[in-house]
Amino acid sequence: MDTVGVCGSDVHYYTHGKIGPFVVNAPMVLGHEAAGEVIAVGAAVTHLAVGDRVCMEPGLPNPNSKAAKLGIYNVDPAVRFWATPPIHGCLAPEVVHPAAYTYKLPDHVSFAEGAMVEPFAIGMQAALRARIKPGDVAVVTGAGPIGMMVALAALAGGCARVIISDLAAPKLQIIGQYPGVTTVNLREESLAEVVARETANWGADVVFECSGAAPAILDLPRIVAPGGAIVLVGMPVDPVPFDIVGLQAREARIETVFRYANVYDRAIALIASGKVDLRPLISATLLFDQSVAAFDRAVEARPTDVKIQIRLRP
Amino acid sequence: MDTVGVCGSDVHYYTHGKIGPFVVNAPMVLGHEAAGEVIAVGAAVTHLAVGDRVCMEPGLPNPNSKAAKLGIYNVDPAVRFWATPPIHGCLAPEVVHPAAYTYKLPDHVSFAEGAMVEPFAIGMQAALRARIKPGDVAVVTGAGPIGMMVALAALAGGCARVIISDLAAPKLQIIGQYPGVTTVNLREESLAEVVARETANWGADVVFECSGAAPAILDLPRIVAPGGAIVLVGMPVDPVPFDIVGLQAREARIETVFRYANVYDRAIALIASGKVDLRPLISATLLFDQSVAAFDRAVEARPTDVKIQIRLRP
Amino acid sequence: MDTVGVCGSDVHYYTHGKIGPFVVNAPMVLGHEAAGEVIAVGAAVTHLAVGDRVCMEPGLPNPNSKAAKLGIYNVDPAVRFWATPPIHGCLAPEVVHPAAYTYKLPDHVSFAEGAMVEPFAIGMQAALRARIKPGDVAVVTGAGPIGMMVALAALAGGCARVIISDLAAPKLQIIGQYPGVTTVNLREESLAEVVARETANWGADVVFECSGAAPAILDLPRIVAPGGAIVLVGMPVDPVPFDIVGLQAREARIETVFRYANVYDRAIALIASGKVDLRPLISATLLFDQSVAAFDRAVEARPTDVKIQIRLRP
Amino acid sequence: MDTVGVCGSDVHYYTHGKIGPFVVNAPMVLGHEAAGEVIAVGAAVTHLAVGDRVCMEPGLPNPNSKAAKLGIYNVDPAVRFWATPPIHGCLAPEVVHPAAYTYKLPDHVSFAEGAMVEPFAIGMQAALRARIKPGDVAVVTGAGPIGMMVALAALAGGCARVIISDLAAPKLQIIGQYPGVTTVNLREESLAEVVARETANWGADVVFECSGAAPAILDLPRIVAPGGAIVLVGMPVDPVPFDIVGLQAREARIETVFRYANVYDRAIALIASGKVDLRPLISATLLFDQSVAAFDRAVEARPTDVKIQIRLRP
Repeated sequence: MDTVGVCGSDVHYYTHGKIGPFVVNAPMVLGHEAAGEVIAVGAAVTHLAVGDRVCMEPGLPNPNSKAAKLGIYNVDPAVRFWATPPIHGCLAPEVVHPAAYTYKLPDHVSFAEGAMVEPFAIGMQAALRARIKPGDVAVVTGAGPIGMMVALAALAGGCARVIISDLAAPKLQIIGQYPGVTTVNLREESLAEVVARETANWGADVVFECSGAAPAILDLPRIVAPGGAIVLVGMPVDPVPFDIVGLQAREARIETVFRYANVYDRAIALIASGKVDLRPLISATLLFDQSVAAFDRAVEARPTDVKIQIRLRP
Repeated sequence: MDTVGVCGSDVHYYTHGKIGPFVVNAPMVLGHEAAGEVIAVGAAVTHLAVGDRVCMEPGLPNPNSKAAKLGIYNVDPAVRFWATPPIHGCLAPEVVHPAAYTYKLPDHVSFAEGAMVEPFAIGMQAALRARIKPGDVAVVTGAGPIGMMVALAALAGGCARVIISDLAAPKLQIIGQYPGVTTVNLREESLAEVVARETANWGADVVFECSGAAPAILDLPRIVAPGGAIVLVGMPVDPVPFDIVGLQAREARIETVFRYANVYDRAIALIASGKVDLRPLISATLLFDQSVAAFDRAVEARPTDVKIQIRLRP
Repeated sequence: MDTVGVCGSDVHYYTHGKIGPFVVNAPMVLGHEAAGEVIAVGAAVTHLAVGDRVCMEPGLPNPNSKAAKLGIYNVDPAVRFWATPPIHGCLAPEVVHPAAYTYKLPDHVSFAEGAMVEPFAIGMQAALRARIKPGDVAVVTGAGPIGMMVALAALAGGCARVIISDLAAPKLQIIGQYPGVTTVNLREESLAEVVARETANWGADVVFECSGAAPAILDLPRIVAPGGAIVLVGMPVDPVPFDIVGLQAREARIETVFRYANVYDRAIALIASGKVDLRPLISATLLFDQSVAAFDRAVEARPTDVKIQIRLRP
Repeated sequence: MDTVGVCGSDVHYYTHGKIGPFVVNAPMVLGHEAAGEVIAVGAAVTHLAVGDRVCMEPGLPNPNSKAAKLGIYNVDPAVRFWATPPIHGCLAPEVVHPAAYTYKLPDHVSFAEGAMVEPFAIGMQAALRARIKPGDVAVVTGAGPIGMMVALAALAGGCARVIISDLAAPKLQIIGQYPGVTTVNLREESLAEVVARETANWGADVVFECSGAAPAILDLPRIVAPGGAIVLVGMPVDPVPFDIVGLQAREARIETVFRYANVYDRAIALIASGKVDLRPLISATLLFDQSVAAFDRAVEARPTDVKIQIRLRP
């Protein structure tokens, strides 16, 4: 293993010892955003060789389940996912992983970028479910790490532009540096008004709801275009009020996402081609023996931090 | 005009004088479920002739609007819809209507069936948005007139079977007479348990939410299959709690519907081929001079009444 | 094993010893249309038990291949398929088969029907790829066994009606007995003219090309509606002329099919619900010790024979 | 009118006086790639004003036709298209055009770019029909003006990269300057081999066939990935051999395109956002009084010329 990113879920297990029904009852290795180098392969493996630089998909389904046969292996209830108790994560010098869920990195894609493929995959899944049409105008509500990943996937995935909203100016500054991104500081402007102005009152073709915030969710009918799509990415802890009649008047389609399936190849292709540059989102890199410091900094949740990574090799 | 059905919205205007922002400020003809006979055609009309038996689509868009150009003319804000103030309805001996929204009835489809095309079109729109795959198992929550229409459209549209739930036994008896329909009386059984049992714990491929009831909407994640679809047909007056995280775990797709577009041809084809028989849902037919009695009976909302129709010709 | 159907490919191996690159170089058991009874299950199998009546999907992919992960395991090059050399078929008293590709038959679905699931699955795959919209008018060119399966899948899968063409009157008589089917004897009528007449010059929403015949393929632009779909099911041995410009003028979508994936559940559901009745297509049933006679009769290809089955149990 | 581009069809009418069934029987104004300035608007027009800089969609359907109601107005047989006899084109100082087919250009999009929207719209239609998934690898066969437009639409529309093939090195040099484009000179390399090498033997997710050349069409099964899509853009004059069985083995989906519908907004959005830069493809601009020279140069078809434009205003 070369590089492992620190995810919000890692931080939550670190601080709370559980996420919903998933409780850490025994010492557990954290980490599921991983890139490394192949040191051994099974006899039947043909697409990988010792020395290959790779990243890994952290969730492993039962490949013979009904969901897996349908190609939606992410929703197979049998999935075993790194650093989701009781499954150990990958913040360790070596891991054993199935070849089918291990992906070769092109030469010019770094390990640091390779470890960004996992969070970017969430953005990719949202972009795929949206069924973006070339030239769509998208809105992303919430400029946290996931909202940023979604915005970049939407742009690379065919949107002409992305309007992204948040309350935190530093986050908007980071994502606003990318071409095609318009930022909306909700302390200063109404998202609905900006969208109306920027789309000649038509609305956004796609809205990626990444805030999980009740007001944003209630406001969706004012943002989405007639016949448009909404992708629910944010995860509000409790049920939230949903304006069904408002959404019906727009005949909106609403998609939900759960992790990802069949997107690693695509994510790597977009990074390799230069259409997506995730490097500006890596805020700090610490060495393995500074892991506690890395987690403590992630706990701080500085508004200028997007991703903290840990390097396992000197 | 030969036959006009009485719709819940007609009844609402009759009793309350308004629906939400639509207020009846001047005398207004009711009715939008219509079949009749052509008595004159414009010079450029080629697909209709005097004497043709027809039914009519009640909503007329601006054909050059952005929504209409996209083929989703139902969500054009400029739509003028029969019996939605200030537009008069069609409960009148004669109406003038554009040929493009007038559809010929095959010889063996009666005027009474022709006047059922409009409510059935709502079921068709739901079935279309669902993107039914042949052999899907569907659930319909709510066995009111719309739920029944949706159930029949789902069956004709490719579902292997429909499980329909309600609190009212008489309604379930009516729809339960159709082959392929399994009824669930919510006073006796849990819908989620029935669906689990009938689908080997997989869930329903498509759920048509036709009740508009908050408990049914909150329960959707327990009904829908992984990767399944939900179509929100029922119209709860206020925003209702929505279990986003539960739906994400299933990666459900949620569609909304608003009236219908481009379904009249299809609806007529299914009725004409015998795949859909709407005649058992016509509960009573009154003559034009009994119109007040017809509306008063519709106001009663007898559980054994599905559709009341008014005949304008002797 | 209880019942095994005889397929055209079985007959071809029986008479020619090969199909294209697949050559029978050693004695090989034939048969891939199978229904039987479970006599033993592996320790981890939960959805099947000894005594269950089942049918089986004959093609087994590598479940970790890229195609299988995508849910299109039918196009995995690694698929091993019963009775495709060098893999033995299932015309044998007992077979070992993975539980994930074995499907329980409802009590009221017979073994004979269970053995029809495989050929019907081909029709189902075509109906799925077509993305039928409820009320579509479909055309099926070619009324051989596959054309018949496609026609029934199309009707059950949402089409209002099917127009099916062939040169052989006896075949048209068999499929013409199903409600919703209009037959066109090409010796007497032009398919394009019938379609124009029956669709008010619009064309067929979906055309299932099941003949593999060059004239039918060249004529597709005259049959398909603007924006309609064509599913290429028939397999012409050599490349055939294709009228690309004609299809472009209709902006037709053309789908191809290869066997099937994820359709057995759906096929069984449609048979179990009574929406599809395949029993009239079972032309003769012979016992296992008459297998040679069964194959010889299949070689005859009587126009009134659709499917010959072999029963292995008395 | 400010700028009008010269299209291959204009040149064909200029040299041959007809294209297939469309014969120039009377003097006809050429030109359908247009940008200009609004000098008057109808009373009911709200989205345009005098002085607006605009481009125009050249094909006008009957907005009440069945095709138009479905949103596929491009395949309405009643379409009247600029410079398709007997309809005059737009190479004239002033034209009258419906507001619904006239699109405002953002301030920073030039008239020259505005007149490129029409040919780019063809690329957009192909990209839309392809249903690109973010990160797809695309192949474009044929690097003529249309192939170039398709390549740029595919990249902007979500493809990670485009592999484009041709026999003409100068054309490949022009399009090869865009990031994300890999060129294949068919005189030096086999496209199938390059695709296999670049996609780890998987094939291209989308193939845009823009050559219309029989060998390219016959070779499609060797290029497309399992479950991939082919978009037939090139227009071979006569029917060409199509390897149906080869395409079935990949279960390829094949789309056809005819002009475009509902893409102008999207095309302008992508140009305005900088995701697509069409300016390098404008090879020469001549003034109105040099129109004959402009056409004569277009007739030459220099391999280094992509688009010739005519300016009507000094």
